[in-house]
Amino acid sequence: MPLARVHNLSISLDGFATGEPQSAEAPFGHAGERLHEWMFATRFWDSSGSAGLDDALAQRHGQGIGAEIMGANKFGPPGWQDDPDWTGWWGSNPPFRSPTFVLTHRPRPPVEMEGGTTFHFLDVPPAEALETAFEAAEGQDVRIGGGATVVRDFVAAGLVDLMHLVQVPIVLGRGVRIWDGLEATEDDYDIEAVSSPSGVTHLTFTRKPEGSVHG
Amino acid sequence: MPLARVHNLSISLDGFATGEPQSAEAPFGHAGERLHEWMFATRFWDSSGSAGLDDALAQRHGQGIGAEIMGANKFGPPGWQDDPDWTGWWGSNPPFRSPTFVLTHRPRPPVEMEGGTTFHFLDVPPAEALETAFEAAEGQDVRIGGGATVVRDFVAAGLVDLMHLVQVPIVLGRGVRIWDGLEATEDDYDIEAVSSPSGVTHLTFTRKPEGSVHG
Ligand SMILES: NC(=O)c1ccc[n+]([C@@H]2O[C@H](COP(=O)([O-])OP(=O)(O)OC[C@H]3O[C@@H](n4cnc5c(N)ncnc54)[C@H](OP(=O)(O)O)[C@@H]3O)[C@@H](O)[C@H]2O)c1
Ligand SMILES: NC(=O)c1ccc[n+]([C@@H]2O[C@H](COP(=O)([O-])OP(=O)(O)OC[C@H]3O[C@@H](n4cnc5c(N)ncnc54)[C@H](OP(=O)(O)O)[C@@H]3O)[C@@H](O)[C@H]2O)c1
Repeated sequence: MPLARVHNLSISLDGFATGEPQSAEAPFGHAGERLHEWMFATRFWDSSGSAGLDDALAQRHGQGIGAEIMGANKFGPPGWQDDPDWTGWWGSNPPFRSPTFVLTHRPRPPVEMEGGTTFHFLDVPPAEALETAFEAAEGQDVRIGGGATVVRDFVAAGLVDLMHLVQVPIVLGRGVRIWDGLEATEDDYDIEAVSSPSGVTHLTFTRKPEGSVHG
Repeated sequence: MPLARVHNLSISLDGFATGEPQSAEAPFGHAGERLHEWMFATRFWDSSGSAGLDDALAQRHGQGIGAEIMGANKFGPPGWQDDPDWTGWWGSNPPFRSPTFVLTHRPRPPVEMEGGTTFHFLDVPPAEALETAFEAAEGQDVRIGGGATVVRDFVAAGLVDLMHLVQVPIVLGRGVRIWDGLEATEDDYDIEAVSSPSGVTHLTFTRKPEGSVHG
């Protein structure tokens, strides 16, 4: 059965997946690029990068994925809904290369981009969005692409099969926290922690068999 | 120069060093014993335990320590100040074996226990408590023994040289969080993360040389 998967979601030691305030100039607020330096140093991001543990885990981001679901705040800075020409941060050829569902309370018609990405805009609950994305993925897995709010909502709704978080050794202090509302997540997931020579710690949450929702 | 050190402070993935509510029956609230199972499995705790990474790091708790500082909520359950006979959780022979300073807004006269522990009660700011503890430690290091509130206050005041946290793969959701108020701690500390085969991740914060306060 196809899975709903989270990959490469980078958090601070205190669990923030973004700093604040989010803006067009600083999409991650005061976090800047610090949450993702580990990823920029891998071949996943740059062909001259490292090919070790961080890279192997990062590469899973695109493997076997047929669609993505993301939140409105990942798609654009505050107020993007007022700009009819906004088509995301990623230029004319976004890296998703599949149907990509943007959850927003102000949906608009789909936008077809180059390279296989089509943005669809949905104002529906998580379970319904996932159903739609699974159909579009045609048998492949669906990536829950973030940000923290959307990942949290999908985990809380019992919809996520695999979640890969990357804990970066900084204390952000403020932003959007992944853990809020996820008390006792360990009841539903096996949790593996692996620290990398780069300094980050990879946390992999694998849904325990008895709790499987798509199986 | 002697150091102020934190050891074996166990936290959940979301950073809580205790659950809630704290009580005489459940000192760690809904966390129960889950934050310390990794430690109970080591020789540090039990002579039939493991002697690997977790044990080696846990053993540092007592090495070179001449005094401890702890908070009122580590010393006893809510309301212990109303019980003139309360002398801590640890029986007649507490494991501290050194002068032990309990920070409380309701101090009382010192109590000498068996085995070298004397409890002193202080109502003074962190820097003053540390100065007193360093004097009592006679050239050895001082352990900042917890709980989270006291560790947080001492780190925020720039008084901690080394901090060893142990991140346990559970999400507590509520309790007392170590990270609150510690934004940008990485500016002052080198931070090392090492995941253990037991499933926990050891986080060691070592004060960067230029920021040294006792050197
Ligand atoms: N650390 C990482 O690895 C990582 C990964 C991805 C993104 N990010 C960052 O995280 C930040 C965004 O995260 P975030 O937590 O602020 O927000 P988010 O999860 O991207 O989006 C949340 C927003 O999406 C809309 N939404 C969510 N569920 C919905 C539903 N069921 N129906 C309709 N609308 C729904 C709502 O916006 P409206 O009500 O406004 O429509 C909601 O406020 C950005 O800074 C981004 O760059 C970080
Ligand atoms: N996870 C671990 O490894 C670990 C380690 C140790 C303890 N713990 C647990 O953590 C919990 C206690 O932590 P906590 O954060 O709630 O409290 P705590 O840090 O033990 O104590 C805080 C209290 O100490 C007093 N205090 C602190 N600084 C003071 C000062 N400068 N002057 C005077 N009084 C001062 C105040 O109490 P009053 O105003 O009431 O006097 C304050 O509310 C307990 O459940 C304990 O079992 C966990």
